[in-house]
This record gives sequence, C-alpha cells and structure tokens, in this order.
Amino acid sequence: MTASVNADAVNAGADIDRERAAVLDAAARAREAAVDLAGRSRADKDAALAAMGAALRAQAASIVTANAADVERARAAGTPDAIIDRLRLDEGRIAAMADGLAEVAALTDPVGEVVRGFTLPNGLELRQVRVPFGVVGIIYEARPNVTADAAGLCLKSGNAALLRGSSSARESNAAIVDVLRKALVDAGLPADAVQLVPGDSRESVGHLMRARGLVDVLIPRGGASLIRSVVEGSTVPVIETGVGNCHVYVDADADLDMAVSILLNAKTQRPSVCNAAESLLVHADAAEAFLPRALAALRDAGVTVHGDARVAAYDENVVPATDADWDAEYLSLDLAAAVVDSLEDACRHIRRHGSGHTDAIVTRSQPAARRFVQAVDSAAVVVNASTRFTDGGEFGFGAEIGISTQKLHARGPMGLPELTSTKYVVVGEGQIRG
Amino acid sequence: MTASVNADAVNAGADIDRERAAVLDAAARAREAAVDLAGRSRADKDAALAAMGAALRAQAASIVTANAADVERARAAGTPDAIIDRLRLDEGRIAAMADGLAEVAALTDPVGEVVRGFTLPNGLELRQVRVPFGVVGIIYEARPNVTADAAGLCLKSGNAALLRGSSSARESNAAIVDVLRKALVDAGLPADAVQLVPGDSRESVGHLMRARGLVDVLIPRGGASLIRSVVEGSTVPVIETGVGNCHVYVDADADLDMAVSILLNAKTQRPSVCNAAESLLVHADAAEAFLPRALAALRDAGVTVHGDARVAAYDENVVPATDADWDAEYLSLDLAAAVVDSLEDACRHIRRHGSGHTDAIVTRSQPAARRFVQAVDSAAVVVNASTRFTDGGEFGFGAEIGISTQKLHARGPMGLPELTSTKYVVVGEGQIRG
Repeated sequence: MTASVNADAVNAGADIDRERAAVLDAAARAREAAVDLAGRSRADKDAALAAMGAALRAQAASIVTANAADVERARAAGTPDAIIDRLRLDEGRIAAMADGLAEVAALTDPVGEVVRGFTLPNGLELRQVRVPFGVVGIIYEARPNVTADAAGLCLKSGNAALLRGSSSARESNAAIVDVLRKALVDAGLPADAVQLVPGDSRESVGHLMRARGLVDVLIPRGGASLIRSVVEGSTVPVIETGVGNCHVYVDADADLDMAVSILLNAKTQRPSVCNAAESLLVHADAAEAFLPRALAALRDAGVTVHGDARVAAYDENVVPATDADWDAEYLSLDLAAAVVDSLEDACRHIRRHGSGHTDAIVTRSQPAARRFVQAVDSAAVVVNASTRFTDGGEFGFGAEIGISTQKLHARGPMGLPELTSTKYVVVGEGQIRG
Repeated sequence: MTASVNADAVNAGADIDRERAAVLDAAARAREAAVDLAGRSRADKDAALAAMGAALRAQAASIVTANAADVERARAAGTPDAIIDRLRLDEGRIAAMADGLAEVAALTDPVGEVVRGFTLPNGLELRQVRVPFGVVGIIYEARPNVTADAAGLCLKSGNAALLRGSSSARESNAAIVDVLRKALVDAGLPADAVQLVPGDSRESVGHLMRARGLVDVLIPRGGASLIRSVVEGSTVPVIETGVGNCHVYVDADADLDMAVSILLNAKTQRPSVCNAAESLLVHADAAEAFLPRALAALRDAGVTVHGDARVAAYDENVVPATDADWDAEYLSLDLAAAVVDSLEDACRHIRRHGSGHTDAIVTRSQPAARRFVQAVDSAAVVVNASTRFTDGGEFGFGAEIGISTQKLHARGPMGLPELTSTKYVVVGEGQIRG
C-alpha cells in the first residue's frame, strides 16, 4: 500500500469487507441451522414456536424498553406521528406477536406433503415432496412485529430466517430476536435459525442480496422503491411483493347498489394497504346512472377523485387526472377514475396501468365476468366483491408472509406452502436406463 | 455533441441503442401476442402445433440449405466435429422436430387447471387457476432443434416465446422460426408468438435480460458459464437449469452387484448429459468388497477415476484427485471417487460439492435410505436406481423445457405445468370486508 492512498478510503473499504464477511458468516450459520431444521418434526417446531411466544410475553418489559429508544430516536428525527405509531410496541402488541406465533403453530406443516406421485412403467416410485427452501432473507420496513411474524413463518416451514428490518426499529428488532434466539435454544433448536443481518449500512443489504448459494430466496416487504432496489440488485432469487394499484371496473350491466358498496369498501375501509382500490373504471353505458351516486358517496367518505374529463363532467369537485394518476398507488383517500367505452378498453387500461395485484369487476353479465377473468392478468381477479379480500387470512391460509405480485413460484397471498420448494424422491430396486 | 467526441464510440452507442430498441420492440410484440394466446383454446393451439409440424416437413429442404451455411461457417472456424454434428440438420432430424411438436400437441393443456379451490366462510368462491406466464425468453446453445421444441412447449402453455440461440446456428434458427411463424399465421395465431431475439451481439442478450415488465421469465439452457451470466445479469426472473455434479453413494449395506450396475449406468450410459454421475462416494465398510470390482469395471468401460488416497490404494490406475475434482461436471468418461466414514459424511460431501441436481444412494437399509432422502437437498434424490432417470420424458411429463436446479418455482424436470403461473379467481355476490 503506498503512502498516497487515501486512508479514509482504505478504512471505508476495510469496513465494507468486514461487514461483508459478517453478513456471509451469518448466512453460512443460517445454512447450517437450516440443515438441522429441515429434519425436524412438526412437534419440535411447534414446541419451539410455543417457547418463543412464552418468552416474548415474559420478556415484554425489556422489549418495550428497547422500543422506547427507537421511538425516542424517531421523534428526535422529526418522524411523523403515524410512522411512530407503527413503530411503537406495548405489552398488548407484544402479546399479539405471541398470539401470532401460536396461530402459526396451529397451522399444518407444509414440509413432507406429497404434491404428486406415481409409479413409472419401469417400477420406479416417484414422489414430489415439499421441502424447506433453506435460508430465507426478509427485508422489511418499520413495524417491528414483522420480526416475530416472519421468524415464526420461516421456522414452521423449516427455513432459517435472515431478517433485515429498518434501521429505525434497530433496538426493538435486536431485543425481539435476542428473546427468540434464547427460546430456540431452550427448545433444543439452533439459535442461528433466526438472525438479524449484521450491519446497519445500505451495503449490508447489498451483501445479503448477492449471497447467492448461501441464501435461497429473498422476500422484500415494503414500499415500491425498496422492492425495486432488491429486484434490481439481487443475484439471490427474489419474490416480489405487495405494490397494489387495484382497479374496480363497473360494467355496463352492473348492479349499481352493489357497485357503490364494493367501491366504497375497496377504497375506504383501509386505504393504506396494498389491496385497497386506487382506480375506478366505469363503462360509458353505466356512467350516467352510476357516477353521480358514486361521486357523492366518495365525497361523503372524504375521497378525492382524480378523474378524466368524462368523470369530471358529473362533479365539479373532481380533480383533473394527470397521466401519473393512472399508475399511482396512493395508499390514501385518493382515487383515479375514468370512463371507458367497453370491457375490452377496461382490460387494456388495467393491463397497461395495473400492478398485477387485484382487480375487480362488478357485473350481472356472465359473459362479461368470464371475459374479464380471462383477460385481466393479475394475482387476484374478483367478480362482484371488494378487492380487500386478497389476503392470506381472508383466503383461509392462516397467515401470510406477503402478497406476491410476480408470476414465478408464488402469486397472490403467500402462506406456509409458498415458503417451500419441492424435491423428487425416486425409489427403485436397481433400475438402470437402457 | 462536441467535435472531441470519438465518432466510433458514438456509432457504437447508436448501434447499441438501436439494438436495444429492436429487442424491446420484439418483447412488446411478444407481450401483445401473449394476450391473444392466453385466451386460446387447446384446440386452437393444437391445430397450430400441427400446422407448424407440417410446415417443417414441407420446408425441410430450405432449412437444410440454411443449416449448410452454418455448418460451413463452423467448419471454416475450426469447430470440433462433435459440435458440428450437434449443429447439423438433415431431413430425418427435421422430421424428428415435427414429431416432437405432435407429441406436445398430445399433452394435456395446463392452462385453466384448477390447482385448488374452496368456498370461504363468507360465501366467496375461491379458485387458484393455472395461467400462462406471458412472455418466456429462452437462451440456448448449439442444437437448432431446441428452437422448434421450445417454441412448441411455449405455445402449448399459452406463452409467447422469445428465442435466443447461439450465433453458430444463426441461419438454421432463422429458417426454422420463419417456417414456424408462417404456420402460426396460417393457423390464425399471431406470428409474434414465436420470435428470434433481434441482434447477434452479446449486448442483445443483455437487453433481453433487463426487459423486466415485458419478459416474464428467462430460461437459460446450456453450459455453466452461460447460466451464470444470465443469473447474474438478469433483472427478469430466471429459472436456472441443468448443471449436474451427480453423486452415487454406495452405503455400508449396499447390494454390491446392484451398486456396480447403477454406477456404470449412471457414469457411462451417456456421459455428456447433466444427469450422468460425476462422483462416487463409498462407505468405508463397503470399500474393500466394492472398490476392486467397481474400479475394474470402470476401467473396462474406459472411465478415468480421480480418487482420494483411500480409493487409489485399490488400483494403481487411479489418478490422484485434486480439490477441483469434487466440484467437477466432467461430462466425459471421468469420475471423482472418495471413501467416506459414514452416511452423514457422504451427505455433508454432497451438500458441499453437489450441484443440487440428482444424487443416489445404493443401500438395503431402510433407515439409511430415509436419512439420505431427508439430508440430501437436491432436485432429485434416488434410492437404488441410476441418476440417469431425472428427465421429463422418463418421469412421464412427456416433454421438458429443461431441468431446474433452483428451488424457486420449479425444481427438477420442467414440463408444461412448470411453464405456467396461477391466478386467484374470486367470485362473490357483493361481499365487502367488515
């Protein structure tokens, strides 16, 4: 090393190398733990989940103390109250995390399920069997309860979890993981089945994203920019989750009472979530009967409508829509709205602007419903119901790790089976290939 | 633009921009075609496959002529005879391509299959239904018959195919795709359901790999370096295929006649393919009885054994193994061989050095078989049979697009269902979420 080399740059490089080594070491330990977990019975895993839940309850005070430091830091940084509320933990929220682990324990173990099987003509017995992925990395924002939820779902599906929460919840996540790891050891399972990704820098996420061969799958949970950066920077396979520009399309032949009810529920029942509606499309033949009622109801519910000229003609409160509105995931009491001339135009609009999450049609016409279901290529296509039902709990999966909006591996709400892969088991009596 | 800018660099940049635009345009046209294909009945697709097969037979002479140009170019470039043989097409091979399309037509259409379904407590009817991916990119080497095979499998599964063969088969692939596209149009389907990726440079593959949002999945088929470059450079989701360092483990309690038979078949029946065995592991308790017989049989079959010291002790012809041998995918009459002290050591060796393709145990012990099947995390784990059975045809899938060695989406031989995604269809009568 020559004297002319900038010492800061060298130190920064050394820091990155050290952090990279720490991340890869954590991943390697997760891999070892995963080998152990893959062989565990449901009874072992459920007992560990029970121990984890009990430990969270018993150690709630220390978790609340750690959380207070995060809350204090967030407040000092001028974080908005709504975000601080998501960050805050109290005994009640910690008890809810423990309840969540008990619910996961009650779910069927996906590992070992025979997905299909047959005897081949040469007598070989072939079975396709569910197995854990191995090591699952989860990158998430804000809410510290995700730490326990994700750890529980990974454990139940036989996977070691590498958790990377937001730095704003650093102390809370560290306290939760500390409690969970001790409980794992008490239950006879390896502590390294649940780990926080070491390091707090942007680079440490990058090391995780490039740990191909050590990490089997990455699941980003959070806003669009987090998801995009993981998708673009990762060499580990990624399951994309959760951006939702969900549409409600009111067909020419819709029951208009039903359409108003579904639209209001989809838009206003919980506007901040990915399965809330963000766009309304109305068939031209229904516009005159539907839009005055719908716009009044939306206004009464506090919704700002960003409409095209044909929508704006019905209500002076409509804000003129810009091109960006058709692609927006508002997550607020805003709604883009347009009139379309046909069901085909509605489908074309959704294909162009939708995010492939959930899109609904309201119609009494069976051919229209069939055509919409066929032509709209989204994780969930809904006929005559609210978009808000796209959810692991609502679908009866018991719990979800996220909602996939990609087409590979899993699409829609992901429960425990979606956290597994399969292997083929082939059993013979000496068969060779001729 | 200033005069100091290097004119060549500008031209090169303009060429890349032009090529990128051409690739993205092809992908956009594939996307349009995919919307059409997704709504087609099995009857429409099977009729198109029949038309494609008939056209290949009718136009065989023009394809052979185009192929002769590729063969001539390869010969002039000093390409080895074995590679030239793989490249060459004659009327017989073209007829085999047409037969392959007829076989695909005879397979069940995966699109529309209801994977699962239930009625939720609130009366919503929920179905998970198979749908095409949309646009599938396939990057492959050498053999031009893959062009027709891949086009057929994609079409049957309702996907538009973007095909990128090797430049050595450029003329052949262009001639085949030209024939297939005309047949598609004659059958009333869009020509753009089957396209070659425009451009012949390395960059054109890069444009395809980054066409996220237009291309739904990329499947590289070829050698390890091709697959690695696609995995590392792609933002489009990738299904990794085919590198195989397959193991045969001879347990302490093996039937030794069976072990010799399986080992020879796995190693020598077709050494150039990914499901051929590349490594032999022998339990120490079986070594003395097994290795002299096995080494003699391997020698008679022309196999070079790269062994550790404990293997070499039985035969002076054994070449001392280096560290690289344990990871090698020879694809030739070479075999790495080691003695291990336990089944656990065998599993650990396979976890460390295997490629997750196919690994076999030969044993009479039920507990040993169970433990091996559990502990070895590969696409196929085989008990008492040759590794050579890991194949879509052998497994009864009728055809395969490749053998996945990744854990996401598909693992092992991929047939038509593995070329699809699913969507949830939710049908109600006005349900809203409370």
